[in-house]
This record gives sequence, C-alpha cells and structure tokens, in this order.
Amino acid sequence: MTLKLCTIGGSGHLAYVLRDLPRLPEVEWVGYAPGDEEEREETLAKTASLAKSAGLEVPRFFENWREMLDTQQPDVAAVDSHFARHATIGIETLRRGIHLFLEKPLATEREQLQELRLAYDASGVQLAAMHGLRYAPAFHAAWEAVQAGAIGRIKLMHAQKSYRLGERPAIYRSRDTYGGTIPWVGSHAVDWLLWFAGTEFRSVYAVHSSQDNAGHGDLEMTALCQFRMGGDIQASVSLDYLRPAGAPSHADDRIRIAGTAGIVEVRDGQALLIEADSDGIHTLAPKPQPGIFEDFVRQLRTGESCRISAEESFAVTEACLLARTSADTGQAISFPSQA
Amino acid sequence: MTLKLCTIGGSGHLAYVLRDLPRLPEVEWVGYAPGDEEEREETLAKTASLAKSAGLEVPRFFENWREMLDTQQPDVAAVDSHFARHATIGIETLRRGIHLFLEKPLATEREQLQELRLAYDASGVQLAAMHGLRYAPAFHAAWEAVQAGAIGRIKLMHAQKSYRLGERPAIYRSRDTYGGTIPWVGSHAVDWLLWFAGTEFRSVYAVHSSQDNAGHGDLEMTALCQFRMGGDIQASVSLDYLRPAGAPSHADDRIRIAGTAGIVEVRDGQALLIEADSDGIHTLAPKPQPGIFEDFVRQLRTGESCRISAEESFAVTEACLLARTSADTGQAISFPSQA
Repeated sequence: MTLKLCTIGGSGHLAYVLRDLPRLPEVEWVGYAPGDEEEREETLAKTASLAKSAGLEVPRFFENWREMLDTQQPDVAAVDSHFARHATIGIETLRRGIHLFLEKPLATEREQLQELRLAYDASGVQLAAMHGLRYAPAFHAAWEAVQAGAIGRIKLMHAQKSYRLGERPAIYRSRDTYGGTIPWVGSHAVDWLLWFAGTEFRSVYAVHSSQDNAGHGDLEMTALCQFRMGGDIQASVSLDYLRPAGAPSHADDRIRIAGTAGIVEVRDGQALLIEADSDGIHTLAPKPQPGIFEDFVRQLRTGESCRISAEESFAVTEACLLARTSADTGQAISFPSQA
Repeated sequence: MTLKLCTIGGSGHLAYVLRDLPRLPEVEWVGYAPGDEEEREETLAKTASLAKSAGLEVPRFFENWREMLDTQQPDVAAVDSHFARHATIGIETLRRGIHLFLEKPLATEREQLQELRLAYDASGVQLAAMHGLRYAPAFHAAWEAVQAGAIGRIKLMHAQKSYRLGERPAIYRSRDTYGGTIPWVGSHAVDWLLWFAGTEFRSVYAVHSSQDNAGHGDLEMTALCQFRMGGDIQASVSLDYLRPAGAPSHADDRIRIAGTAGIVEVRDGQALLIEADSDGIHTLAPKPQPGIFEDFVRQLRTGESCRISAEESFAVTEACLLARTSADTGQAISFPSQA
C-alpha cells in the first residue's frame, strides 16, 4: 500500500512528519503548499530545511493548497498552517476524504471546532492532533507506570509548560491569529491530563494575563487552569513564557501525578516514581518511542488508533477553548457533556 | 526585661517555642496547660518530650488555662491547642493583654477570625501566627533572591504541600474540629504566596475532595487553589496527603516563582535560581536562620515585626477560609477588601 502525502504550512511541528518519513517507505510525499499566501516564504524555508535534515528531496511546491489537493489527490494531509487556519484547512481536507494529521490546537474558536467535528464525523477518514509529547520517552515511562498501577488511582495532577519568549512573529501577537496561550502552549499540558487520567473533563477555572509581554500585543505571558475531571481527579496547569534566556533549555515541561498508592513525576526529562511500599525515589528507564507520524501512519494501515485518538484530539482543544473562556470571563465553566 | 511565658496545648508546633527557649534567657516559662480537658494527656506528653529534647525543666502544670493566665500573669502566651480552639483561646488571651504566638490557622471559621481581629485591634499587644517555614533556610534564600531583584517582578507562583497521611487522630476527621486541609496544610503555602508577593489576595477559586481518605471522615485528601493577587500575580497551590509511606521524608514542600527576569524555586530543601542573563541553574547557599519564636521575642523587645506580621497572619487565615468556601461552593470568590 502506498500512501500519498501532502503537507500544508510549516509554522509548527512539520518536523514530526518529515523526520519520520525516512522510516516510512510506504508514504510518498507528493506536494507541499503554504496555508495562505502570507505563509509562502516560511513554508518554503521551513520545508526545505527540515527536508534537508531528514535527507529528503522536497516534492512539487504548490502556491495554493486547494489546487494541490485537487491535483495530487493525497491519501493523507499534514496541516501545520498558522493557528487560526488549522480548522478551516482541516475541514476542507476532511470533506475531500483525506486523512488528517493536524497541528494543535485543532481550532482557535469553538464554532470552528464544532464544524471540524461535523466534517470529521461525516468523513470516514482518520484524524489525529500533533500531540507529540505523548511520545517523549520520560512522559511515556511515567504513563506506563501509571497504567501498570504503580500509583493506584490518580487523584491529583499538576502540569507545567514554561517557554522562553524570545521575539515572536506577528501571528503570536493578536488573539485572532494566535488563539491564546492556553490553547497553544496549554494544549500539551491539557493533553497530558487527559492521557494520564483517561477520564473526561468536568469543569475548569482559569486565569491568564498579557501584561509584561515585551510588546507582544495580546499574547498571554502567564496562565493557570484548574480542572475537575471524572473519577474525582483534580488537575492544575501552569503556563508561562517566563523561562529566562539563560535557562539550559527552551522548554521546562513537567507533570506530577499523585495517586492513592504512589506519586510519579516528570521533570528535566526524567520520570521519577515513589511507590507506597518501596523505599525512596526511583528513576524510570526511558524507552525509545516511535514517532507520532509513524504511529499515525500505522493507524492508517491497521485502523488501530495511534496514541492520540480523534476523540481525544477534539476533547483537548475543547478543554483549552473553554479554559480560555473561563480566563476571559472570570467564571468557572462546566463542560457541556456534563451539563 | 524578663518575659513570662505560658504555653497552652501541644498538638502542633509547640516545638517552635521550646526549641528556641535555651537561647532566650530573658524568657521565663512559668506554666503550661491543655486547651481543653480532652487535650490533657497529649499536652502533658508532648510538652514533656519537647522540654526534654531542649534540655528544659517543665514548669507548673495547670488543668485549666484560664486559671493559669490569672495566676501566672504571663507577658506572652504560645497557643497550640486543637485547631478549632485557636481563636477562642486567642481571643481571651488578647483580652487579658497578653502577647500571642498562635498556631495556624488562627481560626477555623471567619466569624471567629473577625472576633479575634477585633480583640487584637483593641489589645495593644503583639500577635504572630506560627508560620515557621518562613525561617526554613532554602525558602529564605529564595525569598532573599526575590527581594534582591534576581527574578524581576513576580508574575506566577506555584506552591506545593504534600504530606504522608498515616493514621490521624479524631480531631482531623471532622470539619468542626479540623477546619479543613486548605486552612491547615494550605496555610503554609498560602503564607509563602503572601510573603513572596508582598501584595494582597484579590480572588480565589479552589477545589478539594475527601474521597479515598482511608476512613478519615471529613478530611480532604487533595485540594487545589488558584489566587489572583495584586500586581498582576497569579498563584496556584497544590495540597495533598498522598505522599507515600516509602517517600524519603514526611513532607514535600515546594514553591516555584517566575518573574519578569528570572525563576526561583525551592524543592528538596534546595533553592534554585535561573536568571535572565546568567547561564544555567544556580543553587542558592542556605544561611542559618533564627527560630520563629526567637524572632517573635525580638519583636516583643524591640517592637519591630518578626517575619510574619499580625496583618499577614490574619490575611493568610482569611485567604485560606475563603478558599475553603470556594471549594465548598464551587464559586470563585473576590476578597472583601477588593469588593
């Protein structure tokens, strides 16, 4: 079976796709295009650079992604356009019956997300959001320990994303194009909560602030979210762009998960476990993981879901958008399915 | 100047007082008593044990603390009775014009707290809550770095208290006698927020749960609080009794403080600093600190406040009680002074 692939845009995690391609002889990369005219130079440059790193020839370039989809008739599209275009492009892709590997957040507005959901439900094709951190070895080691019962039932979680700000391009500076720090930075952390808990979000209360953002317009520098989830799980998320330039890495990703019989946490790329009945803190050995796109291609071949199901992909973006609304309004919000 | 001291109860941090006494020749310990008949055996045993550790002779024992205060006419009382009696005993102490070193939370109900506040305002004496963790060397090193401007202006904080549950006595098992995990365990973390931020609490949203508490009645095993503070500061608190028996210590106290120019955090008894313009993570050298009671006695001598002022002592308990109300009701709460 050969799968024809088109890529659209290159502003986020296009690397997830291109770095896996050398291991996927069944995938034929047949074209790339920007998500919009204004993404043209970025898409050309980013695609060329990532292709070179992966030892790949770049395929035919299209100025217009609709024309590319019509001409090349791909089986799968990887969409990594600017934030506010994810849903728009995703909807058209799904309506053409093309499998969709979509950068997160899936949408920057709930109406878009609902429309994307309807298009997905009607499509019969596969969809996954680019929540690549489920494949980070330390996070996966922690998740495996939880699955194996090492900490009993989860009661409390705290997840952290901390980024360097640097100098961000214009799309980060307006809510209309960026969507917000909770949907973008936060979706990783919210995804961990859903992945570890395996239960639904019930309510959220959040705050965020764009003060002291070094001239970055609407961009929120800080945010806190607090979720209630099924199974009496409480979870908080801390997000910021305050990681100093002098820090040893761009991102400081963490999660701490406390259960009825132990605590596991990930920080500094290590997974640490304390169990009820063994002494001290144990470092869990990380194991090599497949690439997320590699796993999604396996899903296309076998029908068995990759680590992030379509259902979860939608749930994470919805949770982020409701958290953003909570932060905008100062109100706690109950999730619709629980109303 | 000699200061006559009476101690009442011995269920919490009486150790803060007795371990400092050998360094305080100006303080004469003239009596001890339980906060109530039901605390008699605990008070006798705990006082004897702590006195022995400190190399002190126990003074005269009184069955009734009111009689003790009338007979011994102390200058200062250290009150470490059961949670729900802190305010009741504190109020009578203040009304007798006795300086008050009071275990936290200062009260378990807001009405009590307001009455205590009125008694304090009318008393002309000094009051401090037993927030001894301000004197823990790593926390103080982090606080000094913040004061010195190492992280710029504070934007985001996350504090954690995690305790082993063990088998707790009856007073922990009823809201009426315990007051709740947010006021008790949480008051340390809430105190750090106030101490580091140096600004007021504006609003709080909190959740807590007493499920899976191994037969401990009302005791909340987990809680999360999210505060907005003055100066655009957002702060979250994570509290739990889920620390496994096999953990290397009873408590896992942490705080992370992110500012406009750096991040400082305390964990595992170490203070770690990342600054904007220096490479990597630096461990701050901890310095020996005075004891909190020693510092309070200095306040009584000099009139200059110890590290936890009366104003802050009241503010921390109020913040905890409002957070508890938020968790009980599911509503975000604005602080009265900001209404």
